[in-house]
Amino acid sequence: MAKIIPNLSVDCVIFGFDFNQLNVLLVERKLDDEKTGKSLIDDWTLTGYHIFEDENFDTAAARILKGLSGLDNIYLEQFYAFSRLDRVNSPNDKLWLDHQSEGFSERIFTVGYFSLIDNTTVSISHNDRNVKWFPITDLPELGFDHKEILEKALEKLRAKLRSEPIGFELLPEKFTVSQLQRLYEVILGTKFDRRNFRKKVLQMKYVIPLDEKQKGVKHKPAQLFIFSKEVYEKTKTERFDFSI
Amino acid sequence: MAKIIPNLSVDCVIFGFDFNQLNVLLVERKLDDEKTGKSLIDDWTLTGYHIFEDENFDTAAARILKGLSGLDNIYLEQFYAFSRLDRVNSPNDKLWLDHQSEGFSERIFTVGYFSLIDNTTVSISHNDRNVKWFPITDLPELGFDHKEILEKALEKLRAKLRSEPIGFELLPEKFTVSQLQRLYEVILGTKFDRRNFRKKVLQMKYVIPLDEKQKGVKHKPAQLFIFSKEVYEKTKTERFDFSI
Repeated sequence: MAKIIPNLSVDCVIFGFDFNQLNVLLVERKLDDEKTGKSLIDDWTLTGYHIFEDENFDTAAARILKGLSGLDNIYLEQFYAFSRLDRVNSPNDKLWLDHQSEGFSERIFTVGYFSLIDNTTVSISHNDRNVKWFPITDLPELGFDHKEILEKALEKLRAKLRSEPIGFELLPEKFTVSQLQRLYEVILGTKFDRRNFRKKVLQMKYVIPLDEKQKGVKHKPAQLFIFSKEVYEKTKTERFDFSI
Repeated sequence: MAKIIPNLSVDCVIFGFDFNQLNVLLVERKLDDEKTGKSLIDDWTLTGYHIFEDENFDTAAARILKGLSGLDNIYLEQFYAFSRLDRVNSPNDKLWLDHQSEGFSERIFTVGYFSLIDNTTVSISHNDRNVKWFPITDLPELGFDHKEILEKALEKLRAKLRSEPIGFELLPEKFTVSQLQRLYEVILGTKFDRRNFRKKVLQMKYVIPLDEKQKGVKHKPAQLFIFSKEVYEKTKTERFDFSI
């Protein structure tokens, strides 16, 4: 079996959307004193691990995502490499890494990936640790430099959302304009005028209206739409704008 | 003195603009057989080096830029981490790395930075190797995976240029609309209608017309403009667009 590379890891910032909030997946980092049972560490981290000698960064991140979701076609994008000298050196971080005793270096560099998951259909589980979705507006204490990594991921996600239609990865195949609006609002932290937003979406050739409405909702069922990556790619040059 | 980290480097893709072409700075990788004088390697690479134990990726890239230009305020942005298993394993790459005998690992990971320089005012020199600007449309043979790194840098530069006004880093403080248009055209590999481009630029509050014209030109001197980062930051929300 391949060995790990002692000073290199990947960390995955897995974003999920549940029609209401933007969430991030965290794993619990829990360590109790073996004799007294007293809690030594109890906080949360992103999901990540060292890369193996026969992997590159992409395949390591895909391995982690597959381990959590069983899927290999999840949107995954490398966004930044982190290298702060003391990034894994807090007392809790050192205690945790020593306890793993897996031959990690004292200084670990990590490459961040963000992933976009439709919270309502993809289910996530971890072999031996608790995993949980947290709204990005209400996060627990994070270990290592994972607060910094998460903030950078959000910054990159926002920039990308403004220039490419990646938001659809967070929605089910069929969605309503209101769901799309809510998604953009929670990620960008802003509010849009309902009529203007709708008007703009209806102008996008790559957001295709279906002859189908929502089912099983209490309110008046809304029209459903799908996103066409094919139409998006075809009409890319038409939408070209040299600067905003 | 700090030691290098054997398996980690940074590579800088230094772009320059000379009012005509987009150029990239390369260093010559030249090795002759000591006995016969026969050329063993003669190609080019990006500028880069291993990171030292007391550095992070940013400070390592800034050190390289400062070494080449004498300046520390040059635009520098991390864009991607490269990890292909055989990225430094071609016969020439191996020969070169062995010859350096500086304790590098067999597998080296590198973090790419791109930098934007005004070709007309910043001068570049290297201690002991030839450096040269090449137009991106006419490149020599590149060592390691540096062709891949350069292509990724261009892709990221283009995406960034479409969403943020970073192009001004490549121009002198005072510039004409034609120079700005040429810059956008060579980076994006496209042509703009002269009148539409001008109209659009004049609408940008952060491109400020001066009461001053070009000097010493053969053609009719054109009006000069400056870019205001301050105005750009202030008017950012006004220009907000949720998707293109």
